[in-house]
Amino acid sequence: MGTIGMSVIGIGGMGSHHASYIHAGEIPGLSLAAVCDTNPERVKWARESFGDSVRSFEDADALYEAGVSDAVLIATPHYDHPALATKAFERGLHVLIEKPAGVYTKSVREMNEAAASSGKVFGIMFQMRTVGAYRKLKDLVDSGDLGEVQRTSWIASDWFRSQFYYDSGSWRATWGGEGGGVLLNQCPHNLDVWQWICGLPKRVRAFCRFGRYHDIEVEDDVTAYVEYENGASGVFIASTGEAPGTDRFEIAGEGGRAILESGRIEFRRNRVPAGKFSRESRKPFAKPEAWNCEVPAPGGGGRHQDIAKDFAAAITDGRTLVAPGEEGIRSLELANAMLMSAWTDSWVDIPFDDDLFHEKIKEKIATSKYKKPAAGDTMDVDGTF
Amino acid sequence: MGTIGMSVIGIGGMGSHHASYIHAGEIPGLSLAAVCDTNPERVKWARESFGDSVRSFEDADALYEAGVSDAVLIATPHYDHPALATKAFERGLHVLIEKPAGVYTKSVREMNEAAASSGKVFGIMFQMRTVGAYRKLKDLVDSGDLGEVQRTSWIASDWFRSQFYYDSGSWRATWGGEGGGVLLNQCPHNLDVWQWICGLPKRVRAFCRFGRYHDIEVEDDVTAYVEYENGASGVFIASTGEAPGTDRFEIAGEGGRAILESGRIEFRRNRVPAGKFSRESRKPFAKPEAWNCEVPAPGGGGRHQDIAKDFAAAITDGRTLVAPGEEGIRSLELANAMLMSAWTDSWVDIPFDDDLFHEKIKEKIATSKYKKPAAGDTMDVDGTF
Repeated sequence: MGTIGMSVIGIGGMGSHHASYIHAGEIPGLSLAAVCDTNPERVKWARESFGDSVRSFEDADALYEAGVSDAVLIATPHYDHPALATKAFERGLHVLIEKPAGVYTKSVREMNEAAASSGKVFGIMFQMRTVGAYRKLKDLVDSGDLGEVQRTSWIASDWFRSQFYYDSGSWRATWGGEGGGVLLNQCPHNLDVWQWICGLPKRVRAFCRFGRYHDIEVEDDVTAYVEYENGASGVFIASTGEAPGTDRFEIAGEGGRAILESGRIEFRRNRVPAGKFSRESRKPFAKPEAWNCEVPAPGGGGRHQDIAKDFAAAITDGRTLVAPGEEGIRSLELANAMLMSAWTDSWVDIPFDDDLFHEKIKEKIATSKYKKPAAGDTMDVDGTF
Repeated sequence: MGTIGMSVIGIGGMGSHHASYIHAGEIPGLSLAAVCDTNPERVKWARESFGDSVRSFEDADALYEAGVSDAVLIATPHYDHPALATKAFERGLHVLIEKPAGVYTKSVREMNEAAASSGKVFGIMFQMRTVGAYRKLKDLVDSGDLGEVQRTSWIASDWFRSQFYYDSGSWRATWGGEGGGVLLNQCPHNLDVWQWICGLPKRVRAFCRFGRYHDIEVEDDVTAYVEYENGASGVFIASTGEAPGTDRFEIAGEGGRAILESGRIEFRRNRVPAGKFSRESRKPFAKPEAWNCEVPAPGGGGRHQDIAKDFAAAITDGRTLVAPGEEGIRSLELANAMLMSAWTDSWVDIPFDDDLFHEKIKEKIATSKYKKPAAGDTMDVDGTF
């Protein structure tokens, strides 16, 4: 078969990066068919960069109407992901979306239904699922080596952003433009990997601080406590105001403890599971003998190209995706639940009422008094994701 | 002047240890004058261990009445600390109490008033305040090197205890006997060092699990979120059910980040404070240059003897104590607030209503249905504190 023609909708910071590596032939089986952006400057940039062989549009409907590709990669601001994806599925296109899946679960659920009806390949750009260390952590949990999970904690405060960053785009860090802050923009990866490895909790109690470190209206600092179905507890901490910041993911289980920090997994394995030891020991202060295990974790992974390749291969040979699009709703449920818990100063169960959250975010947009100092240009996203 | 005669009230696991090193002459200026325990077996042990030169009593009032010492070290179950200390102050004795200061702040506040009226030296056995690494962390905060504190977190889950431990004493881990679990028994040190270095928060939202890992009625697993007056946030996690467990204390400030784990301080210092950098940078993804600083921290410290020596020296030369008894109320306020927050499933401000907590703990005792399987003997506390 020939190559799969891919259109990239939204060629701002992220989308232009995707378009570039596809156009450069880095993804076997995938070719750049078209790009689309509502900003004429970006379209001009695309024409200059990719030449006439790549079609360009200023309107997604026109792109869809032209029928120029087999698949789309949607890299617009978050709000537009579900509607654009739904339209693509209706056109019989395969869809790869940038994270987060959307801003509120109601629209994402509708997108997931459209995807299921279409039978097309649906992926989401959760490239961190290809990182060797995360895959190995998941392996330790799934295999049972860590035993029943008792506590999870992720301090993900290594997302420092300057005020300049927030001032650089009119949609950034506003309820109307992004629908959230650190949870929606910086942390979808963390939230996805967290739930991918440890599962979704059953309830959330979160503490979000809005504009704590920056002149913005959305959250730039979050601490969330969660409880899982099996009785385990968890903590998630995120911030764009801390430097140097921390990125430390810890999972405590009956079988031991695993910590991922600075790219290194530390796994201490109990010779006897903690609960069994507690019940059987006749010593008050003893604890299970624990072995420091050097766990081999494959390096590499974590590149956008890894997910794009996986997506292309799934279209070609029907394989299961590393990051199925339908799972994008899970990290969004976490993010939405955290915001709703902070707004209501109370517990939020998962799943929660989609409509209620949708009402609340509309209210935030309607009552927003925040005015952006200035709209900026497309940012170079080198060094971020 | 001659030596200070010290009586030790309560010679169970902890008190017999104190009595032994004092009797062995390890504390300059201090001699063991008497011991007291309501358990005749322990009094017998003391006679056999210390001989006739050390007076022994089965009743604290009799000890006080006999006027055999200048100071007392109170190492009874927690509930009795305030009443016994108050009586000692009324007798004009210097007092050193084991932690926690008591079980509820109401009685501790009364003890503090009695101490103040007496003018006697009042210390509390917070020997971790003498640990070099903690002193250095405090130095980094107090000196301003860490800058304004933004977030604190202490994962103190390295308190594994077997069911046998809990079954080993009839007073252990009951509302009536101890008045709490991991917060009252294992964590007074963590809570004290935390507040000693970072200050008391202004409000607490905690999640305590009661008998999560053990057949007990009190909390053996806690996650608490706190907010400080300056806007900083904090998390405290404690457990007696996890193995191998974690002991990691992190402080994020404008000036950098300090982590104490495995006895080692990691201090990364921002060349420019985070907030100033955020306001002034013209780069969206840059963050302050941070220097890994090797901070010398004196080793040693952390022994009970360090606090006993400090106490003796304060009596002799009037120096300020490393751990003044009056400050014992602070970690207890934290522990009480965490319990009350969990009981009421809501925020608790600090300071809270002493009387309300007292009512609640009395209610827990009155409605306790828990029966201990068997009462045990005095435990050897080697390897713990």
